[in-house]
Amino acid sequence: MSNPFFKNHGPFRVSEITRLLNININNSYINKEVHDIKDLASSNLNDVTFFHSKKYKAAANNTKASFCITTDILKSELPKTCLPLVVENVLVTVSKITSIFYPDSIDDNFDEYVTSINDTNFIDSVIFGKNVLIGKNVSIGKNCKIGHNTIIEKNVEIGDNCLIGSNTIIRNTLVKNNVRILDNCIIGKHGFGFFPIRNKNLRYPHIGIVLIEENCEIGCGATIDRGSMSNTIIGKNTYLDNQIHIAHNVKIGENSIIAGQVGIAGSSIIGNNVKIGGQAGISGHLKIGNNVEIGGGSGVIRDIPNNTKVMGYPAKNIREFLKDNR
Amino acid sequence: MSNPFFKNHGPFRVSEITRLLNININNSYINKEVHDIKDLASSNLNDVTFFHSKKYKAAANNTKASFCITTDILKSELPKTCLPLVVENVLVTVSKITSIFYPDSIDDNFDEYVTSINDTNFIDSVIFGKNVLIGKNVSIGKNCKIGHNTIIEKNVEIGDNCLIGSNTIIRNTLVKNNVRILDNCIIGKHGFGFFPIRNKNLRYPHIGIVLIEENCEIGCGATIDRGSMSNTIIGKNTYLDNQIHIAHNVKIGENSIIAGQVGIAGSSIIGNNVKIGGQAGISGHLKIGNNVEIGGGSGVIRDIPNNTKVMGYPAKNIREFLKDNR
Amino acid sequence: MSNPFFKNHGPFRVSEITRLLNININNSYINKEVHDIKDLASSNLNDVTFFHSKKYKAAANNTKASFCITTDILKSELPKTCLPLVVENVLVTVSKITSIFYPDSIDDNFDEYVTSINDTNFIDSVIFGKNVLIGKNVSIGKNCKIGHNTIIEKNVEIGDNCLIGSNTIIRNTLVKNNVRILDNCIIGKHGFGFFPIRNKNLRYPHIGIVLIEENCEIGCGATIDRGSMSNTIIGKNTYLDNQIHIAHNVKIGENSIIAGQVGIAGSSIIGNNVKIGGQAGISGHLKIGNNVEIGGGSGVIRDIPNNTKVMGYPAKNIREFLKDNR
Repeated sequence: MSNPFFKNHGPFRVSEITRLLNININNSYINKEVHDIKDLASSNLNDVTFFHSKKYKAAANNTKASFCITTDILKSELPKTCLPLVVENVLVTVSKITSIFYPDSIDDNFDEYVTSINDTNFIDSVIFGKNVLIGKNVSIGKNCKIGHNTIIEKNVEIGDNCLIGSNTIIRNTLVKNNVRILDNCIIGKHGFGFFPIRNKNLRYPHIGIVLIEENCEIGCGATIDRGSMSNTIIGKNTYLDNQIHIAHNVKIGENSIIAGQVGIAGSSIIGNNVKIGGQAGISGHLKIGNNVEIGGGSGVIRDIPNNTKVMGYPAKNIREFLKDNR
Repeated sequence: MSNPFFKNHGPFRVSEITRLLNININNSYINKEVHDIKDLASSNLNDVTFFHSKKYKAAANNTKASFCITTDILKSELPKTCLPLVVENVLVTVSKITSIFYPDSIDDNFDEYVTSINDTNFIDSVIFGKNVLIGKNVSIGKNCKIGHNTIIEKNVEIGDNCLIGSNTIIRNTLVKNNVRILDNCIIGKHGFGFFPIRNKNLRYPHIGIVLIEENCEIGCGATIDRGSMSNTIIGKNTYLDNQIHIAHNVKIGENSIIAGQVGIAGSSIIGNNVKIGGQAGISGHLKIGNNVEIGGGSGVIRDIPNNTKVMGYPAKNIREFLKDNR
Repeated sequence: MSNPFFKNHGPFRVSEITRLLNININNSYINKEVHDIKDLASSNLNDVTFFHSKKYKAAANNTKASFCITTDILKSELPKTCLPLVVENVLVTVSKITSIFYPDSIDDNFDEYVTSINDTNFIDSVIFGKNVLIGKNVSIGKNCKIGHNTIIEKNVEIGDNCLIGSNTIIRNTLVKNNVRILDNCIIGKHGFGFFPIRNKNLRYPHIGIVLIEENCEIGCGATIDRGSMSNTIIGKNTYLDNQIHIAHNVKIGENSIIAGQVGIAGSSIIGNNVKIGGQAGISGHLKIGNNVEIGGGSGVIRDIPNNTKVMGYPAKNIREFLKDNR
């Protein structure tokens, strides 16, 4: 996955990592360097990856990573080129190591290093309202407008001809050309991802970004969280109505239309030309095909194939829903 | 329909319009003037209207408009006093022509022509917070308060004894006496109305306003969109709880009570003394009678007659719902 | 109930109260003093209480209050030590008397007495953004951050190590240590409580507060209303996702996890270790036990015992729900 915004603080020596995890490994490895942390499929030589469920056995068999955080039971699936780092809780460990490589991805406090847009180079190239604040590592294209009290926090790239409303907050986000983001949106904050621990939950880092493709419109009051290990994506010419919540790692295709107060839970993937009626909800980790129509108020808890119309809670074929509810 | 805020840039010559639509008409008409664009029932001599569905045949037979955008199949229904302008897509054409008459209704960017309330005449008559901004064509009655960071954008009329919270944005809205609008609301922006077109949707203009009658209360985080060809209306003494979404052209009657997170889709009409429980959703283009009670969480997809209690998804008689779900 | 923020303007003479209610009582009482207004169970000698439903007969029999607002039918249940004040509408009367004791609890307008944080003592102890405003009777602990445009209105106590986001508004709220409140939240405003009266509803005062226990996280766009006669409470280490609405008097236990767009109606009590899926709604005045799991999209309209998993609308045992919807 691309990481345009979060700086990789690696490489680290293996010994630095194993000391942190309180585990021992063969001496011949301890001076090796670990360059990055990635998932099984995308990691390369000198990366560390993770393997926590049999579901990913095939990917584990073929990983190119040099190191893998895993369990005693699963470790035998790894190729000989990959040294297992056996731990009790794989995901908590991944979270810790990700924090070392990408320390900037943990802190989601307000951006205290913004300055007034009046003190930036954008004063001549952007039409802007009162009290607009701009963080570090921000670029804004030609012919853009930014409304009152809006805060473009650190790590934001905005294309040409974009219109950003008032009272909106954006960070860690890539906005392509001709995008409209209306008022009161919050885009690019970390998702609702953490390990529940009695008395004090453990947040895991979110090293993904939000990517909003060209010609999109994002309605008032949207919250779009950035991804954890991948990106949250809104496809080309997709329109979102008001008060919509898009959780981390969600990917929405092109030319889709999503009505007011819809919520899409983490990691679900929505196809192209999808229409979702008002207040519908989509559970996490689902795959919604192309040309799907989801009726207003539906609760989708299973995958939906291409070219299907569904409605209901749980959502089923719309003809069936209407027949059952005459 | 009244149009207190959007300036009619007409009249235009018929020839200017037909050239834009790339259609030819009889030479004897081309110098005639077109004064306004209205629907079939409300248009008058020298207006242009539109007729796109047999459903409106009766209104078409009796329209007083001098011109009508319509299709080859429907044109025979028009009276002899009305010249058909035959096009392929009636609604897209209406959108184009409305944009010519009311160009100010298209642009919904942030209002860049606001000034600090400290630089207006309201400094003595209104009690206001920090960072309050006021647009053009704004009036505010006696004994009003406006909270911090609130933006009263262009085209807003506020009555006496009104209390507006903080972080709220209002435009194109008429607020009567004794109304309370709480924090973080966005009122008067265009609705979620556009023609879906591959790669680049076409927004249609919204020339309606939002009208909030006296003694209303609008809870925190509301979004109330203005109408497209008619107005969005909240009736007298109607109370809205937090996080409610009211779409374009919705009309709500008097003395109604609407609980948190309710959503009402476009063009639905709600009667007087209606109670709607939390998170209920009402589909578009429905008619909900007087004295109706809608249970929390309901999904209403059909009209509801007066004096009815409903619940469920889809909503049905509440006794039936409770019996079916014992 | 504790009342750390609203000043009790009592005591009042009984005659002042009876004159207001337009009722007569025995002359021997009129010079007595009334110290406070409380519910049947918590009131003491010289307090006034209220009794409006047979449901509370046992508490009425044992109240220590010296005065009780009640009806002609119910008054015989009161002990001899308690003088009945007979009225037509008990709750409306309670509302009026509460307003006399706690006049500051009625007005929920924006706080016009805030000042820039730059002009307060917090300038050295807090890390803060631009345009932060602070009201009267505010305390903030060590090592806190407050984001841009955030307004800490009157009557707020914030503990140590708290992170408050941007564009957030807080009043009448107690925030314990290590709490994170993200952007665009509105916390501590009055709830959606009023007596519906034709043409002009009557708001009742909210003398409760919001209490957020340590280690909590409140997601973006939350609205958490303060209690009317008791407090609204979020228990230790409970996490709320984005766009959640918590109504007045709701009490949520410890270590609970509540996903995006959930709504909890007034006075419901949620246990410890409860998980609530996205968009679920919980009706008012319910009791949800410990270790309960509520599936996303559910509509809960009945109490739920400990250790139960439910889903559906209305919510039922999850196995039953899945079986019925295979």
